[in-house]
Amino acid sequence: MMKIDINSDLGESFGNYTMGNDAEIMKYITSANIACGLHGGDPVVMEKTIMLALENNVAIGAHPGYPDLVGFGRRKMDLKPTEVRAYVLYQIAALKGMVEAMGGKLQHVKAHGALYNFAVKDYETALAIAQAVYMAGPELILFGPVNSEILRAAEQTGLKTASEFFADRAYTKEGTLVPRSQPGAVIHDAAISNARVLHMIRENKVEEIGGTTIDIEADTVCIHGDNPAAIEMARLLREFLENNDIRLTSLH
Amino acid sequence: MMKIDINSDLGESFGNYTMGNDAEIMKYITSANIACGLHGGDPVVMEKTIMLALENNVAIGAHPGYPDLVGFGRRKMDLKPTEVRAYVLYQIAALKGMVEAMGGKLQHVKAHGALYNFAVKDYETALAIAQAVYMAGPELILFGPVNSEILRAAEQTGLKTASEFFADRAYTKEGTLVPRSQPGAVIHDAAISNARVLHMIRENKVEEIGGTTIDIEADTVCIHGDNPAAIEMARLLREFLENNDIRLTSLH
Amino acid sequence: MMKIDINSDLGESFGNYTMGNDAEIMKYITSANIACGLHGGDPVVMEKTIMLALENNVAIGAHPGYPDLVGFGRRKMDLKPTEVRAYVLYQIAALKGMVEAMGGKLQHVKAHGALYNFAVKDYETALAIAQAVYMAGPELILFGPVNSEILRAAEQTGLKTASEFFADRAYTKEGTLVPRSQPGAVIHDAAISNARVLHMIRENKVEEIGGTTIDIEADTVCIHGDNPAAIEMARLLREFLENNDIRLTSLH
Amino acid sequence: MMKIDINSDLGESFGNYTMGNDAEIMKYITSANIACGLHGGDPVVMEKTIMLALENNVAIGAHPGYPDLVGFGRRKMDLKPTEVRAYVLYQIAALKGMVEAMGGKLQHVKAHGALYNFAVKDYETALAIAQAVYMAGPELILFGPVNSEILRAAEQTGLKTASEFFADRAYTKEGTLVPRSQPGAVIHDAAISNARVLHMIRENKVEEIGGTTIDIEADTVCIHGDNPAAIEMARLLREFLENNDIRLTSLH
Repeated sequence: MMKIDINSDLGESFGNYTMGNDAEIMKYITSANIACGLHGGDPVVMEKTIMLALENNVAIGAHPGYPDLVGFGRRKMDLKPTEVRAYVLYQIAALKGMVEAMGGKLQHVKAHGALYNFAVKDYETALAIAQAVYMAGPELILFGPVNSEILRAAEQTGLKTASEFFADRAYTKEGTLVPRSQPGAVIHDAAISNARVLHMIRENKVEEIGGTTIDIEADTVCIHGDNPAAIEMARLLREFLENNDIRLTSLH
Repeated sequence: MMKIDINSDLGESFGNYTMGNDAEIMKYITSANIACGLHGGDPVVMEKTIMLALENNVAIGAHPGYPDLVGFGRRKMDLKPTEVRAYVLYQIAALKGMVEAMGGKLQHVKAHGALYNFAVKDYETALAIAQAVYMAGPELILFGPVNSEILRAAEQTGLKTASEFFADRAYTKEGTLVPRSQPGAVIHDAAISNARVLHMIRENKVEEIGGTTIDIEADTVCIHGDNPAAIEMARLLREFLENNDIRLTSLH
Repeated sequence: MMKIDINSDLGESFGNYTMGNDAEIMKYITSANIACGLHGGDPVVMEKTIMLALENNVAIGAHPGYPDLVGFGRRKMDLKPTEVRAYVLYQIAALKGMVEAMGGKLQHVKAHGALYNFAVKDYETALAIAQAVYMAGPELILFGPVNSEILRAAEQTGLKTASEFFADRAYTKEGTLVPRSQPGAVIHDAAISNARVLHMIRENKVEEIGGTTIDIEADTVCIHGDNPAAIEMARLLREFLENNDIRLTSLH
Repeated sequence: MMKIDINSDLGESFGNYTMGNDAEIMKYITSANIACGLHGGDPVVMEKTIMLALENNVAIGAHPGYPDLVGFGRRKMDLKPTEVRAYVLYQIAALKGMVEAMGGKLQHVKAHGALYNFAVKDYETALAIAQAVYMAGPELILFGPVNSEILRAAEQTGLKTASEFFADRAYTKEGTLVPRSQPGAVIHDAAISNARVLHMIRENKVEEIGGTTIDIEADTVCIHGDNPAAIEMARLLREFLENNDIRLTSLH
């Protein structure tokens, strides 16, 4: 039986500000990327989200980002690699310690937003992240998209990796994401995105935006849960995969 | 041979802002209380301070405070115990993970500023701190002044404790600190404060502000290092104690 | 024709975090209290909210709070009056300058959350707020509940005041709000709260929680808009008052 | 009699963190650029610094920066022009309102750190700054280095400008600053830098790093005051210019 992991970003609420519907999306995923307090999340939200993941038997990952709360970590900051490493280590350590305090175990790390996007292309930043992950726990799995500097740096560092496939995004011929600014970059039709995910799982292939079929191999599928439509897409994806005999399971 | 631990607050710089002279005070202490990023400190400063402590063979403790950077954690905030617990756990976890990532081991926890002062008198807050410490590591030692709710809550929770003596502060007949606002509250003469520390170590006694001698038993002496005069006092205390055959050693 | 002002807190979103439905509640109020960036709001949100108020011909007020974003300004902080004055002046100045830059005029100031609640009872804090308002503009109107230290301090300082009536809250015999923790403190039935508002406008009376009728005189009615039910209550109140020949108008 | 303005960055302390020696540097300058709370400074520090400037008869400017306290505004952030405009307007408005509340008048605006450096080369960002300045007060003077996009955008917007000369920095043949990373970029010898300032004032010339003499015309000389050596350089510059019959005066 084939299997796949489904991951989503959670725990992004902050104080009195609610973001997403964590309790709902938890039902459809197998790995949760939990914000660590610098771009989103706070200690109380982190506790609550960890508890929710443990109750739903969802594997837990740290989701570190830039220290830019008002920008939600979505704006690139010119940081030195030593700053990136320290910020990422701090965030992983905080979440890891809280997870262990609550009887769980941290499975993985996935960088957030602009830090993720920059590290995809910038080896030095990717390496700073990978080093922080290794320092926090050499057994941790680092997430990154196929063909990215993140995965290269992780392998170089001796980390286990999980390559990500994006269910609702179009791909270029080179296997990278079509930028959101371009037409057709985001797939809104669940039937199409579900079929693409299944194609990727069964045959390690995806149809790129130009219409040809390219190779792609991924360990985890990234989905969103920050609005009701996204949650419905998540529900449909899970149902569809299970109906097609794909086992949904975290990475351990 | 009698022995004592000497602790001081460190790692309180933030970004481009420098506070104290950590490299200097490290030479005279045996336990460092390192700020964890909410009232002072940041991930880069924390890394640097941990490294400095490891190099100087100084035991490391977490020094969590209120999330009030502009107030440096010195202004009481009306937090629910569940908020205190989450904030403290977050801070300990972050520092503990960083210490372990760098090959060290966390020895203790000491609350900072207004959180410390409030927990001294408020059992509910003290208990929230003690629970966070226990969750982060049941082997951790919780610091608190003699006769405080902090020590009571720590014992109740099953934690090891270290009671603190303040080298430069006057005591009331009840064994609590004379508030800084009162005349005579702070002792500026090293000869006097050194003699008081030795008296406490050798005979478990201190002369209270009214002139009588009271019982006091402490495991660690708290000193300051945030200005040149304080560092000179630290140097003199260490020299004085060593000349009097007191062994300076951390608590493990 | 009798008249009344209706005020509500707005502009409380922060970065990617949305709070309330400002565009909707704007239709039913005559004065907007806009957050100034310390407990909620940010410069981009402030610009957008000011624009919305100008478009809806709603009078604008500054809504300064404690510098506690993660606590949304709802947790008391032990600040010195000089700190309160500086923080409040900073916030009013920022919003006032932005309003004027966009062609508007600041009408009033209303303190937020725990700062408001503390100043209601603490003259020193109320005076610090009133002084900040006076410094920012002696023509500004300071909002506060009937019989509060806020109004006393405002009058002492030479400011114009507007006393607030809370549409959905029960009152004690002394004319203060029944704490939210007590049964019956919040009125959820629009028919009841609307009738109370009309009673207050027409006869300067309200039925206190014990059942007797007390005197109460207010210039503005505070309503909420942070959830769909609150917005529906706002719509019903406006409709009800207009049907009863009460003119809704800001304070100038 | 020839004249010149001397400006310096001040009010960069934050809470318990002290930066620079504002009281000392105030004696030697004619214009103060005061931080506004996002990259440094806080409302209490701002009040204190404004008071100091008023007492020393030093003209006051706003010194807005990126919202990056831990990076002190020295790390580029990828902000949209609309974000830059809102952040800068907020900061100017806050300082301007505080200055006016204390009986003063805002003279100018100078962007800080990475925001300044980026706007020097990026017209879109420079324009966003200039628009914010114009919105806050069309009479305000915008500071920027000679030949910069900042000055071009300011003129385009209809603002008065003041071009800056850096006393302790080497220039390229094109009249731009030699990057700090290159040898010879910073001039540490007061005799040399003083002579350069005088040369610039009297003849609108400076010797560029290659040895030839280029034209340069500036209204204000930027100096530093964040360490004792810098303050001594400031003292010597003021003395030197006065001995050479240059009148030191702000720009109004």
